[in-house]
Amino acid sequence: MSRFFSEKYKDLKAYVPGEQPRDQQYIKLNTNESPFPPHPDVAEAVRQESSRLRLYSDPECTELRKILAERLGLEPDMLLMTNGSDEILNFAFMAFCDQNTPAIFPDLTYGFYPVFAQINQLPWKEIPLQPDFSIRIGDYFRAAGTVFIANPNAPTGVALSRDEIEQILRENPDHVVVVDEAYVDFGAESCLPLLRKYDNLLVVQTFSKSRSLAGGRLGFGAGSPELIRDLNTVKYSTNPYNVNRLTAAAGIACLQQDEYNRENCRVIMENRAWSVEKLKELGFEMTDSLSNFLFARHPKISGEVLYRKLKERGILIRHFTLPQISDYNRITIGTKEQMECLVRTIKEILEEKSA
Amino acid sequence: MSRFFSEKYKDLKAYVPGEQPRDQQYIKLNTNESPFPPHPDVAEAVRQESSRLRLYSDPECTELRKILAERLGLEPDMLLMTNGSDEILNFAFMAFCDQNTPAIFPDLTYGFYPVFAQINQLPWKEIPLQPDFSIRIGDYFRAAGTVFIANPNAPTGVALSRDEIEQILRENPDHVVVVDEAYVDFGAESCLPLLRKYDNLLVVQTFSKSRSLAGGRLGFGAGSPELIRDLNTVKYSTNPYNVNRLTAAAGIACLQQDEYNRENCRVIMENRAWSVEKLKELGFEMTDSLSNFLFARHPKISGEVLYRKLKERGILIRHFTLPQISDYNRITIGTKEQMECLVRTIKEILEEKSA
Repeated sequence: MSRFFSEKYKDLKAYVPGEQPRDQQYIKLNTNESPFPPHPDVAEAVRQESSRLRLYSDPECTELRKILAERLGLEPDMLLMTNGSDEILNFAFMAFCDQNTPAIFPDLTYGFYPVFAQINQLPWKEIPLQPDFSIRIGDYFRAAGTVFIANPNAPTGVALSRDEIEQILRENPDHVVVVDEAYVDFGAESCLPLLRKYDNLLVVQTFSKSRSLAGGRLGFGAGSPELIRDLNTVKYSTNPYNVNRLTAAAGIACLQQDEYNRENCRVIMENRAWSVEKLKELGFEMTDSLSNFLFARHPKISGEVLYRKLKERGILIRHFTLPQISDYNRITIGTKEQMECLVRTIKEILEEKSA
Repeated sequence: MSRFFSEKYKDLKAYVPGEQPRDQQYIKLNTNESPFPPHPDVAEAVRQESSRLRLYSDPECTELRKILAERLGLEPDMLLMTNGSDEILNFAFMAFCDQNTPAIFPDLTYGFYPVFAQINQLPWKEIPLQPDFSIRIGDYFRAAGTVFIANPNAPTGVALSRDEIEQILRENPDHVVVVDEAYVDFGAESCLPLLRKYDNLLVVQTFSKSRSLAGGRLGFGAGSPELIRDLNTVKYSTNPYNVNRLTAAAGIACLQQDEYNRENCRVIMENRAWSVEKLKELGFEMTDSLSNFLFARHPKISGEVLYRKLKERGILIRHFTLPQISDYNRITIGTKEQMECLVRTIKEILEEKSA
């Protein structure tokens, strides 16, 4: 820390992203990326757009919002596009929390939520998950703040049903409920259909997972036109041209090939089912994940040791040091070949250990 | 404003970007974009990078920082890449200002500075420019806060010399001085050579103007490794993957063709000299701009009327409604043909008026 750094941040613990090795030696099952590249049309779209790079991007993302709104059955003024979904989440912390309105979220969820609260100097309250890692919805009724629920939750993969979230919305008429649906396209129920019914709902989604654009950085918020207007006030006070031309072009090309993305999601869910079965055969316990990752532990090997031994063998998975979950690892669902390799390698590690 | 919007922002006035017409009917001299497209290599670089979009971008921008550091004679750990220079400016307001350390800047400068202060709930102090729009450096000696100087200044185009900025740095040993060099490549002196001498200097630059990448959104901060570390703490608490893969690839390709960019800047400076001469012949008064725009007024026509009449004729320039400068317009320097068209059209407007 330099001698100039503001005192207000002296205790700030920044978010630590998953390892991003720059060599391509690893099977990367650690950051929940898609194993499939984006549709080939994306390459041509960004090549064409690059001839217009001398001009600022459209701060309103007019075309992208129009197409996305059509796909989702919403109006364009119910959408705000951002530089990844982290940005819209940060905007929501800024717009809808303050000293009198803490952020409220599970004690085990996306690790960035407490960081967003800290960077914005906001109070926050963590509500413990149940021992089986599920969310008890009653814990969020009449919450005295803005609720953030990742659905499915991370790193557990456990999802609430739309009906359960609707109960949370109904029981919090005077507070915003943010539903972070980064992983929703792998089998969970989206709350987008509730948007016209609840003015306190903000749905957050991303192009990073189910649409294979993690490196393109495109996310969005969907809510009532009034909520979106507030979030736009924050955006225009922070970074008006937050979505660049190339990313917007990639997003449009991607939406035009949504059948391709849906097929990829179907394959990932198929690979998930296969992986769950094989890992259970090897003795793993895991949550019932509706995301593109598994959250698993083995009674005979610690999470940290398994992570390390897999890394030595060229496979990266994500280990968390939080005591509560240090037995577990989060394993991204890759291609069938990658999952076969993972299962084979884990089998070797377990056999070696018991030898 | 929705009923959920935090009270803390109830008086917030968001930044208003210049008009961005989506039809291509206008000669756009209103947002200081380059009239020249980026080097053709950029198109190929982004096309190639699009095949890797499924993977997150490198949050450290390792390759881009390495190449940029070489070009600037700095070390990579003295650089932080951002989603346009607005983002690094916002990070600097966050990191180096607080209730006891106001932001200090001229009363007439980049209009986003007071917005950054407001969104971060920071006190700020505006120091009046001299009547000729110059900055009196003594006004910034022993400043009781973090100093932000756009150099050349916007929307005036007037620049301080490096020696003058060095005096400000020397007279503020205990406060950060941010020098926003968005327009420095059109004839002003950069403060980058002072970086190894002053640990309180942060230089901000952008690829938007002299490198023709306004639509790519790439900016950076250059400072001591300690300052950059603080800014990284803010970045990793806000948006770790702030620079996407396509923009990073465009930036690298662009740096590898920096001779092309320098030649474009040379032409723009040549067109500026020509435009100054022609507009003076038409009776305009203007500042001595070292940027890619002119700041001009005419004794016989108001800024607002000239702006409107030019727009009717298909030429966009930027008019500001601030009373202090409402006589003036900011006119981006375009191609020779565009400037010829501008001068011809203004001549017609003036003749029509006096007819």
